[in-house]
Amino acid sequence: MKKYIYGIDVGGTTVKIGLFNLTGELLKKWEIHTKTENKGEAILSDIYNSIKNNDIKLNEVLGYGFAIPCQVVDGIILNGVNIDWEGYELKKIFSKLVNNNNIYIENDANVAALGETWRGAGSAFENSAMITVGTGVGGGIVVGSKVVEGVHGSGGEIGHIRVIHENGLRCNCGNTGCLETVSSAPAIKTAFNSLLHSGKYDSILKDTKNISVKMIFAAAKEGDLLCLEVIDKTAYYLGYACQILSVITNPNVIIIGGGVSNAGPFFIDKIRKNFMEISFETVKDTLIVQATLGNDAGIYGAAALVIND
Amino acid sequence: MKKYIYGIDVGGTTVKIGLFNLTGELLKKWEIHTKTENKGEAILSDIYNSIKNNDIKLNEVLGYGFAIPCQVVDGIILNGVNIDWEGYELKKIFSKLVNNNNIYIENDANVAALGETWRGAGSAFENSAMITVGTGVGGGIVVGSKVVEGVHGSGGEIGHIRVIHENGLRCNCGNTGCLETVSSAPAIKTAFNSLLHSGKYDSILKDTKNISVKMIFAAAKEGDLLCLEVIDKTAYYLGYACQILSVITNPNVIIIGGGVSNAGPFFIDKIRKNFMEISFETVKDTLIVQATLGNDAGIYGAAALVIND
Repeated sequence: MKKYIYGIDVGGTTVKIGLFNLTGELLKKWEIHTKTENKGEAILSDIYNSIKNNDIKLNEVLGYGFAIPCQVVDGIILNGVNIDWEGYELKKIFSKLVNNNNIYIENDANVAALGETWRGAGSAFENSAMITVGTGVGGGIVVGSKVVEGVHGSGGEIGHIRVIHENGLRCNCGNTGCLETVSSAPAIKTAFNSLLHSGKYDSILKDTKNISVKMIFAAAKEGDLLCLEVIDKTAYYLGYACQILSVITNPNVIIIGGGVSNAGPFFIDKIRKNFMEISFETVKDTLIVQATLGNDAGIYGAAALVIND
Repeated sequence: MKKYIYGIDVGGTTVKIGLFNLTGELLKKWEIHTKTENKGEAILSDIYNSIKNNDIKLNEVLGYGFAIPCQVVDGIILNGVNIDWEGYELKKIFSKLVNNNNIYIENDANVAALGETWRGAGSAFENSAMITVGTGVGGGIVVGSKVVEGVHGSGGEIGHIRVIHENGLRCNCGNTGCLETVSSAPAIKTAFNSLLHSGKYDSILKDTKNISVKMIFAAAKEGDLLCLEVIDKTAYYLGYACQILSVITNPNVIIIGGGVSNAGPFFIDKIRKNFMEISFETVKDTLIVQATLGNDAGIYGAAALVIND
């Protein structure tokens, strides 16, 4: 009898493994090191070895969901950011190891969105979007409890919505003016430095070395005008992305996650305020909330891939 | 035995009715007048009377799909633009008339997108978006051959993507800077007049009365610099909307429909060129094409609602 699901989140540094029951309760979680060497060829057997030592029988496992740092379309791995798995037959190989055909794979940002929608900030909803604001800006779209992966695996690449029409900063993707260039953690620091050098404002942080995003938020909360302008601008563009989402897939809830979202209600409220100012009446009750699962979003979402099939 | 499907497109002036076989071939189509009086209470019985006189038996009909000018969520009519059907139990009422429970309803713009995806410009694809450029700018999103209606019925409201951050023109929706304010037929005329009055260019149309969008396109094709700038700007913003779509639902194909799309390849090529300049590598083979079904998109899409269920 099937009793369990494994949700596995493969990152560039660690693999997070979660054991769930069929009602979606997390029973146990742990991490192993990710061996990215040789195109990550050891990763699957490491995972297998790690779970076979667990005290549950593999024939009691309904299925295995994987969140991977790669673009995935219809179960095919197109390319990877931190692990070179392009074309890698993950499903086939892992299926043999565990003797189970219920293997699901999806891009990690999309899976995090699904996890938050299933058991985190978006619980009780089937339609959501997640914007993950950290070193980059990522995202995922869920419609009818399914990830919208897109035909090139670029569904939910919210960080690459163009938000600046002219003279935008260069993005890692090669274009200019992407949301990521104005809302990521590095972008917040760049905007701080640029505004400081403009001489428009004084700032309590002006003589501080190694400015962090956390410090910029703290200063903004204390009313530092320079930091407030930086954060307000960031919040405007994230609110703008929410406006776009509200008239494209029109979700119940937009979840803000990633390191920068740890700034909490001070930041989320600003994003919501900006959204409200530029969105039309019909969609104004769209929820904009902070993510709640943190680093566990991936294992939850990976388990949801199995449950929601 | 079930042999037929009816695709019914209810507009503010006429109801278009299409009879399809189960392989999606249009066998016959006709129109009747839409009686919008008294909250459109006569419309369904008029449709019923019109099809019962047809020479096929109603018990051979698999189902009936409706495209209606209303926002629809999960079969519930939220509100209507030209027909006041808020809360109207269309499915229940029509189901009794035709003695068939397979009744499907969806917003007309979304249904047109589905029709073009099923049998028009997007055939052979399951993931598409349509932008309809006419008096307003509408749209629809199809993911996995299903319309993304959104939780408020605002899925695919592409005309209300904000594209101008500051000092945008007022939109009919109440906000400013929507795509509709820079790309609809009236917006093209407004942009022409405004640029003419600015004195930046001379124009071969400067002394013409009752300028039409068709005339502006014709002059642009002849190299009129003023008209070219107007059309290029319109095409930029539509290309911009395509860029946004390419990183949100990431469709195979984006279909440009509506009256303005009749400008043909001259216009579609400009939209595509703008899209290519601002989109990232992965999505550059997204097709941007002109709609092919014209006013029949609605009846095709309505039939697809039945077929795709």
